[in-house]
Order: sequence, then C-alpha cells, then structure tokens
Amino acid sequence: MSKIPENSVGLVEPKTQHFDEALLLSSGKIIEQYDIVYETYGSLNAAADNAVLVCHALSADHHAAGYHHADDLKAGWWDLCIGPSKAIDTNRFFVVSPSNLGHCSGSTGPRSINPKTNKAYGPDFPIVTVSDWVNYQHRLAETLGITQWAAVTGGSLGGMQAMQWAIQFPEMVRNAVIIASAPKLSAQNIAFNAVARQAIMSDPEFHEGRYYEHQVVPASGLKVARMLGHITYLSDDAMGDKFGRELKNKQLNYDYEAEFQVESYLRYQGEAFVSRFDANTYLLMTKALDYFDPAEQQGGDLSAVFKQVQAKFFLASFTTDWRFSPKRSREIVRALTDAGRDVSYLEFESNHGHDAFLVKNNEYTDAFAAYMNNIEVSA
Amino acid sequence: MSKIPENSVGLVEPKTQHFDEALLLSSGKIIEQYDIVYETYGSLNAAADNAVLVCHALSADHHAAGYHHADDLKAGWWDLCIGPSKAIDTNRFFVVSPSNLGHCSGSTGPRSINPKTNKAYGPDFPIVTVSDWVNYQHRLAETLGITQWAAVTGGSLGGMQAMQWAIQFPEMVRNAVIIASAPKLSAQNIAFNAVARQAIMSDPEFHEGRYYEHQVVPASGLKVARMLGHITYLSDDAMGDKFGRELKNKQLNYDYEAEFQVESYLRYQGEAFVSRFDANTYLLMTKALDYFDPAEQQGGDLSAVFKQVQAKFFLASFTTDWRFSPKRSREIVRALTDAGRDVSYLEFESNHGHDAFLVKNNEYTDAFAAYMNNIEVSA
Repeated sequence: MSKIPENSVGLVEPKTQHFDEALLLSSGKIIEQYDIVYETYGSLNAAADNAVLVCHALSADHHAAGYHHADDLKAGWWDLCIGPSKAIDTNRFFVVSPSNLGHCSGSTGPRSINPKTNKAYGPDFPIVTVSDWVNYQHRLAETLGITQWAAVTGGSLGGMQAMQWAIQFPEMVRNAVIIASAPKLSAQNIAFNAVARQAIMSDPEFHEGRYYEHQVVPASGLKVARMLGHITYLSDDAMGDKFGRELKNKQLNYDYEAEFQVESYLRYQGEAFVSRFDANTYLLMTKALDYFDPAEQQGGDLSAVFKQVQAKFFLASFTTDWRFSPKRSREIVRALTDAGRDVSYLEFESNHGHDAFLVKNNEYTDAFAAYMNNIEVSA
Repeated sequence: MSKIPENSVGLVEPKTQHFDEALLLSSGKIIEQYDIVYETYGSLNAAADNAVLVCHALSADHHAAGYHHADDLKAGWWDLCIGPSKAIDTNRFFVVSPSNLGHCSGSTGPRSINPKTNKAYGPDFPIVTVSDWVNYQHRLAETLGITQWAAVTGGSLGGMQAMQWAIQFPEMVRNAVIIASAPKLSAQNIAFNAVARQAIMSDPEFHEGRYYEHQVVPASGLKVARMLGHITYLSDDAMGDKFGRELKNKQLNYDYEAEFQVESYLRYQGEAFVSRFDANTYLLMTKALDYFDPAEQQGGDLSAVFKQVQAKFFLASFTTDWRFSPKRSREIVRALTDAGRDVSYLEFESNHGHDAFLVKNNEYTDAFAAYMNNIEVSA
C-alpha cells in the first residue's frame, strides 16, 4: 500500500448494477436488460445531498479515481480532481462514476452477450445518445437512493452529459460542472469522427461489426482511429515541445518504419488502445458525440433550452484546446447568461490542448476546488 | 472551344522528357534513368530570361493551367494564377510545370516499370526529397535552354521546392514565390502524415507496396488518408459554412451510413482520389514533406541558410490556414529579414484554410500579379 499517495481514495472496487426494466432509447429501440458497472468514492450522507456524478468521455470508463491493486502504476482517469482534499473532495462528497451503456469496460455494450441470440450484440447493439446515458444514470441514482445531485460533472463528452442532465432533469441537478466541452460538434469535429469510423469499418477484420464471431478484432482500423484521435487531443505546441522533429534513430532512414519520435509515439498509443478498447464501442461513442445537440429541437436556440434549467454552472476551457476550444465553451456561457442562469466561467492557460482537463495545473484545480467547496451539503 | 474562357492558356498537351544520366538521390540511392512529364505555357524569349518554374504540391501534377480537351470541365490546378493577364502572365512569362519524380501522373514513379525487373517499382522506388526534385528540375531546365529562372513558385509543398531552389542554385533563381508554405513540418504535421501512411500500409491490399502484382490497390487505406488530408486543407469555419451539421436525409438514421453532409462529402472525395492517385506515391510525397528541413544542417538556423541566397522573395499566407498557418510563413520571412534578403510578405483574409491558395480572391491574385509584373524580362 506504500505506493498509493495519501490524498488518494485508495483501493477501489467496481460494482455492478443489473437493470431488468427495459430502457427506451432515443432511436426508438429498446434495451430489455443491462448491467452498469460503476465506482463510488466517499460516503453518501444521511440527507443524501452530497452526491456527485462523474461522467466519462470517449475512451475513459468508471475507474475515475484511486487504484484497483496496490501495485497499480496508474490511478483512475480523473484522480487529479477526485480524492480527499481534491477539487471533488471525497471527505465531503459521495462520488458516483459509472461506465456508460455501450461501453466495453463492463457495462452492457456491443461485446456483451445478447440474451436473444447468445452471441455478442456487435452491430445489433443500438446506437445510444447522451440523453440515453442520462436516463440510465437516472435509474442508477434511484438504486443508490439519490434524488438530487449536488453536482454532475465531466470533461469533453462527459461535460455534454452534465449539460444534458441539467436540461433533462432540472430539479435533480444543483450544479453542472462542464470542462473542455462544446454545445455540439462542429463540421470539423464530425469529420474527424467520420474518418475514424471509416478506418474501423473498412478494416477487413471488422466483418460488419461481427468480428467477435470470427475471433478477430479490426486492430489496424482501430489503431488508425486512435492515432488520429490522439492528434486532436494534443495541441500543436505540446506536440512540438514533446517531440519536435526528433528522430528515433538520430538519422533519416529513407524507409517507412516509424522514423520521427512522434510517429513512434502515435503507433505505440494506437496499439496500446487496441488491446484495451472495443471497436464497436468506439463507433458508438463517436456517434453519441456527433448526435449531441440539445438546442436542435429549439431551432438552435440554446438559450431557450437553458431557460428550463435550475442548476448553477461552472465551466472551464483551456487556451490550446482546438478540439473543443474556449470559443465553444463561451457559446454555452453566453446562452446561459442570455437565459439568466448563474454561471462561472474560466479559461486556463495551458499547453496541453484538449487533454489539459486531465493534466496537473494548480490554477485549474484550485478554481475547480473553490467552486465545489462552495456547494452546500449537510453534515 | 467555346467553353474555354478567353483568359485561359487554352488547350495544352503534356510533353515527356527522358533522362538517361543517373540521378544521385539524397538517400544515396540512384535512379538510372527516368521520364519527366511537363507542360509549358507561353513562349521562351530570345534571352531565355522569362522562364517561371511552377512546382506542385502533394496531390497535384504537371497540369497546372489550361485544358486537355475542349470538353474538359476542369482546368489545371493553378489556372487561377497562370494565363494571359493573370498573376503569372503567359503573355510575358514562359511557364514550365513538371510532374515530380515519384509521382503517378506520367513522370517515373513507384507504378512505373523498373527496367531491372520488368515489374512496377513499387516499394523499390527510392524515397525522394525536395532537394532531389530540385535536381531533376535543374536538368529539365538545361534541356529547355533555361540557365536562370525569372521565378520559381508554388504553394504548400510547391513553395518548399521554390525555397529549396533559391538555396540550392542561388545564381539560377531571381525570384522565389512561396505561397502557404512552411520552413519545415511541425510535429503535428508529421503526425497527420504518419496516420495517413498507417492507414495505407495497414490495408491488407497494400501487400507491402507490391499491390500492382496482385492487381489490386489499397483503396480503403488511401481513401482514409485522403479524407484525413482533406480535413487539414479546409478550415473549421469553411467546413462549418459549407456543411454545418446538415444531414443528408434530414433526420438521424441511428446507423453508420454517411449521415451528415460532411461525412458524405469526405467519403466521395476519398473515393474520387483513389481512382486517380497511387498509394505508393502518396507515401512518398508525405515523406518528402516530413524530411524537408533546409536549416537542419545549420543547426536549425534558417537565417544562416538564407545568407547564401540571391533571389528576391514574395511570400503569402492565409488567415484560416491551420496546416501551414501564417505563423509558419512569418518564420521564413523573419529568417530572410535576418539574413538581409529582399522579401515581400502578405497575409490574406480567407475562409478557405490551406486550400485558399487555389481559391479566387482578388486581393491575393492582384498582389501576386503586382509582384510578378515587377519582374523584369527582355522583350
């Protein structure tokens, strides 16, 4: 245990909640039954008013903080912000962190067994939306005895879930904390997702999504998709600082092996991802991103949508994030302000691009902590 | 002929020049013999001092202006700037536009027959550099009786060739006109190329570059590479204006068909490219981009390199170009200024991203014309 830092939530164990009641999805399809894997940190107080929902982005999962084993080298994906005396202070808050429906880390998704066929769902797993996720999270809250969240929070696609919660269940969200997110994808954002999907779907090992039955995975396609995604998470500057034009073997080889350090790094990241992630889930998560557009039903008027919300908002963005730039957060802030909502917004200087919400930066974590500390909870 | 506009160079025919003398490449390898396909527009004057070399970028070729057939719907790639009374005025200048060595449009390249094996070169075609291209272009100049260029010009990778000409043969270049280019690729630029190459090379139809022998092409990989490239040629704003979040069929389908207009557009562009371009050439052109770094031998001091040049320079960049942003052009301008060279530089407002150098914009073409008109040539 000596390796685990003192301000960590320590060793944690995922739990699984089975749901028997069918869930009607945005697509009109139904999931008859499903499992949701989640972790919790801290304790729910007697008034049940200190619960914080943490929503994950494309490639993360329920393991947001702490360690699964004493020998783990890596903590959960948002350990930076979740723990005793951290921004989401587990001495005060009861944190709930589920893996989304459709994911590949334990919650029911494309590689789970479809009870109707006794085979993996594969492409028969329906496309789910951010709104669908809010619905299963709502059910999870019920099973945990939570009728209102002190806060719902997340970065990137996680921030979209926090926004959707405030819209979909206004009376259940006291605070929405939305980091490095956007009100909807731009054409360029969709285009990058389209290329990633194309890479996966055109891999001959994809077998129209039924690759499980062939005992293969579309590794090449998923690798390309991840390499591409990775570029969009980093800033041009950060890549320049980290790799520049440095060569792997100090000289040009005049061949097509990985030659520049940045090439080598991306290939490694792509391969590591293939070993832990499911291609159908990647497709599904990018679609949830593409589809998210809460103002669509109001003719694009986000301010009109926010007139219904009751939550207070905290938003943060990072200067070199070009995937979801500060401009995109400002669109949300402006719509909230138009709607007369209570919103705090900060732009942080950072060299780390979109990944900045996961990277140590005292200005960011201090401001996040300051906001969270002002949320009142019962003793 | 009525379809061909009056200010066009009209119908043009490519010529082929065969070279028997071996060319020593930067890699240390040798091309024993090769063909170069090129077009010319206008006439070389008696003093042979009015020749302009036009260098092409990744996916273009020798067909820079005019039409191949009276029924052609599309003029050459830089018809905007080449023709009677255009920026490169063919009433004054003799324009030479070759297809680069390694290309797939007639000049010797990977899909040409290797005389040693009587099979397509494929991966045995050596990787060539910008400097190698300047060397074959130098030989082409000799065959045409040109001992000095009034100007060498190009956009993007073409601009790199213009820069390299001024460095490699200082006495042969009176003016270097460098549009939307960069002094070397950034880590992010290299990363995008690396993903494109990964997509091609991991396509099972690639067969380690020997796909010609299998009568197949790595179509899926090349399509993904082109889709990705295309995103980097357009600005976020231009994509937003052109496509926004518009759907192909007015409603969400909840499937993985091309659903947003931007997806549909990219898939179409990718497929069209596969029908006209060779995957090995794509690999080779991206490597030439990655390797270009004229200051590398001087420890990164571009100013020291420019101390040797004699040319005057004209540079232009475009505000929304994020592939080779104005910042990258300014690096070149600053190094030229440090070196005491004569340089004019303009940044143009444009919504068209990197593609702006190919798009009608009077401010740009007028300034380009003004610079070219000041170049003195004999009657």
